[in-house]
Amino acid sequence: MNTTQHHPKGIYSPVLTPFNNDGSPDLDRFARHCRWLIDQDVGLAIFGTNSEATSLSLVEKHKLLDTLIDSKIPAQRMMPGTGACALADAIELTRHAVEVGCGGVLMLPPFYYKGVSEEGLFRAYATVIDAVADERLRIYLYHIPPVSGVPIPLSLISRLMKAYPKAIAGIKDSSGDWSNTEAMLKEFQPHGFDVFAGSETFLLANLRGGGVGCITATGNVNPSPMVQLYNTWQENPSKADADQANLDATRSVFAKFPMIPAMKAAIAWKTGRSDWGNVRPPLVELSTDQSKQLQELLTQVNFEMPNASSLA
Amino acid sequence: MNTTQHHPKGIYSPVLTPFNNDGSPDLDRFARHCRWLIDQDVGLAIFGTNSEATSLSLVEKHKLLDTLIDSKIPAQRMMPGTGACALADAIELTRHAVEVGCGGVLMLPPFYYKGVSEEGLFRAYATVIDAVADERLRIYLYHIPPVSGVPIPLSLISRLMKAYPKAIAGIKDSSGDWSNTEAMLKEFQPHGFDVFAGSETFLLANLRGGGVGCITATGNVNPSPMVQLYNTWQENPSKADADQANLDATRSVFAKFPMIPAMKAAIAWKTGRSDWGNVRPPLVELSTDQSKQLQELLTQVNFEMPNASSLA
Repeated sequence: MNTTQHHPKGIYSPVLTPFNNDGSPDLDRFARHCRWLIDQDVGLAIFGTNSEATSLSLVEKHKLLDTLIDSKIPAQRMMPGTGACALADAIELTRHAVEVGCGGVLMLPPFYYKGVSEEGLFRAYATVIDAVADERLRIYLYHIPPVSGVPIPLSLISRLMKAYPKAIAGIKDSSGDWSNTEAMLKEFQPHGFDVFAGSETFLLANLRGGGVGCITATGNVNPSPMVQLYNTWQENPSKADADQANLDATRSVFAKFPMIPAMKAAIAWKTGRSDWGNVRPPLVELSTDQSKQLQELLTQVNFEMPNASSLA
Repeated sequence: MNTTQHHPKGIYSPVLTPFNNDGSPDLDRFARHCRWLIDQDVGLAIFGTNSEATSLSLVEKHKLLDTLIDSKIPAQRMMPGTGACALADAIELTRHAVEVGCGGVLMLPPFYYKGVSEEGLFRAYATVIDAVADERLRIYLYHIPPVSGVPIPLSLISRLMKAYPKAIAGIKDSSGDWSNTEAMLKEFQPHGFDVFAGSETFLLANLRGGGVGCITATGNVNPSPMVQLYNTWQENPSKADADQANLDATRSVFAKFPMIPAMKAAIAWKTGRSDWGNVRPPLVELSTDQSKQLQELLTQVNFEMPNASSLA
């Protein structure tokens, strides 16, 4: 276990949300996927971008979170995404996450309006923190400008850390801009602001720079080698470099396709359950041809999903 | 009245949502603002971008819509924004809008994921239409790529019109790209697909091109001259050009500031009610200095809000 209460570290995955053929979330498969990840020491960033979280209603998110709690999956290892355009929604889900004991929450800024001021974004986070008003709250900011369109600049982080030193716990940097991650590692990590890389592509670099791990899409399908690198990177630098290269090779296969449908198609393949391929609009599942191509490429990089039968 | 049932035309305004000092929507002021707009023959595109709709919870939207119905404001003159990232939310609000008799709905595509396929966007709209399953449904597509980040291409419109000839009623084009509006006027308007310009800047051009009107932010504060141009543009072309230029002059003042806070500040000024200035994060109200500057510039263009006292 790579974490203690209120101090998430290591590898987290934005947990894929399995859908039934009628489009409803499959609660049982969701819980089993989470259990499979936990068993490999991967934390649960449920309701992330790769979870199709913004395609879920608030009621569905409550039900999914409660399913995990009822299944005795440790809340401390969960970091649900709770950001929303409507702050009332963000407050409600954040409050619930804190009450059931989640180790942290991953929070998008409101993402409809673009080009908003730093003051406006500060108020958005402050409104949620003040409304939840719980000293157990640990917020990981979610910086993903290529999708959200709303960046979280360093100056905003600095201001939030000063105003809410306990609640502002860290960040997931999904900018894809390593210089941004580096700047945060230098300026904020020494003050207890934990930097997670937004993809395993930057896992080793982030750890070497003092960061605490990564929260990554492909943690859903390729978790063990990531955890292995996280646990051993200090032992042998050249082996660590080679392990990172292997991670990159597998990721690059998924990155040739729309990422979320591709990960679901890989699980459908490995479990023999075609409904693992289901996604919600505006996403589209992989075509049969794409799935075949994915399988061939994954075979070439010796892709494995140990114990995938437990997800079937 | 510029409309008959199921055929909205003329000037619509994305109705500003007034907030109390505690941040809650002021239902009474909202209803009075809607009445004021209706009295000037402006249709009610409640829950638009300028309504801060994405900052409202689903429960709040239901309450606001029901307030208007209870206030006997004609539903036929309403075109609520019902698009959402989570299609379940879009379906619920759209169904409610149809049931209370709204003349149409204005529908954003799901706007979190960027670069999604046309097939995915088609499925998103199809999912809502099929779920609502009501032949009274009239959808106006909401094309506002500078904010949503998710454009609605002409090829998608064409496909939707073929699949749902009755439900797909028209569009609000807020791209700011006149060549896009022109293309729709040419290709789709002759087939009964009604093109609204997304701003009064293009009102006259849109009417001359066969379009049906505009749905515009500043309809909240400067409605009469827009309705006047809409009603008289065919009588005297050079007077119409001059009227359009006057509209542009007023709009350009608001456009010097963040638009939503500026419109609210103008109403606060004209009504003497400072809480009209309230916005929700991530937006920020105008500063005192900005408000003063706005008032000076509006005075220079002879800005008036007739009967503003009814909004106080």
